[in-house]
Amino acid sequence: MVNYNGRSYVCLLDFAMDFIRGKWKAVLLCHLYNEPKRFLELQRMTEGISQKVLNEKLKELENDELVCKKVYAEIPPKVEYSLTNKGKELTSIIKQIESWSVKHYPELDNKCV
Amino acid sequence: MVNYNGRSYVCLLDFAMDFIRGKWKAVLLCHLYNEPKRFLELQRMTEGISQKVLNEKLKELENDELVCKKVYAEIPPKVEYSLTNKGKELTSIIKQIESWSVKHYPELDNKCV
Repeated sequence: MVNYNGRSYVCLLDFAMDFIRGKWKAVLLCHLYNEPKRFLELQRMTEGISQKVLNEKLKELENDELVCKKVYAEIPPKVEYSLTNKGKELTSIIKQIESWSVKHYPELDNKCV
Repeated sequence: MVNYNGRSYVCLLDFAMDFIRGKWKAVLLCHLYNEPKRFLELQRMTEGISQKVLNEKLKELENDELVCKKVYAEIPPKVEYSLTNKGKELTSIIKQIESWSVKHYPELDNKCV
């Protein structure tokens, strides 16, 4: 058993998978892989996500130090999200899962990024 | 949008992540990585999983052609689960996620297999 921040995991893989649990987080990380994105860009790229859920998921990724939020002192304010080094490493692995599905389900090919 | 077996996914990564969604499937695949395992071995290795849920998850992995179930004509019957080639490829990627967490959270190190 692994205990972290008041939660229990059966092992370190279970712990790691929790960072990308649910429908959106792996997809969002992939959207940020090549370059930083603004909130509205991410929402536009991520079909079906609501503003509330996107906000919530970005906050979770930020708390987990996978994503970094940068606010530029401009008017109107510009906010950008990018991957941290730790997030970039995890995302490069997640992208292999995407490649795995492209290989095995070529008829469904429709890449995220 | 990707449609497959009556379900919709925002992209091929969302589709692929669905194979290992939830608490158990990624962990079970890793348990099968090195060699085939019997049901009770898997249950023993996977702390906290009930017989019902293990059965259900193995069936899902089998339906997704990631795991293969082999029944030996013996008395008492011997049943073994192993990874298919497709499952082995996916699992080798999942194991990188485990290594990522070992690297970034060394204080929690407690490998699954």
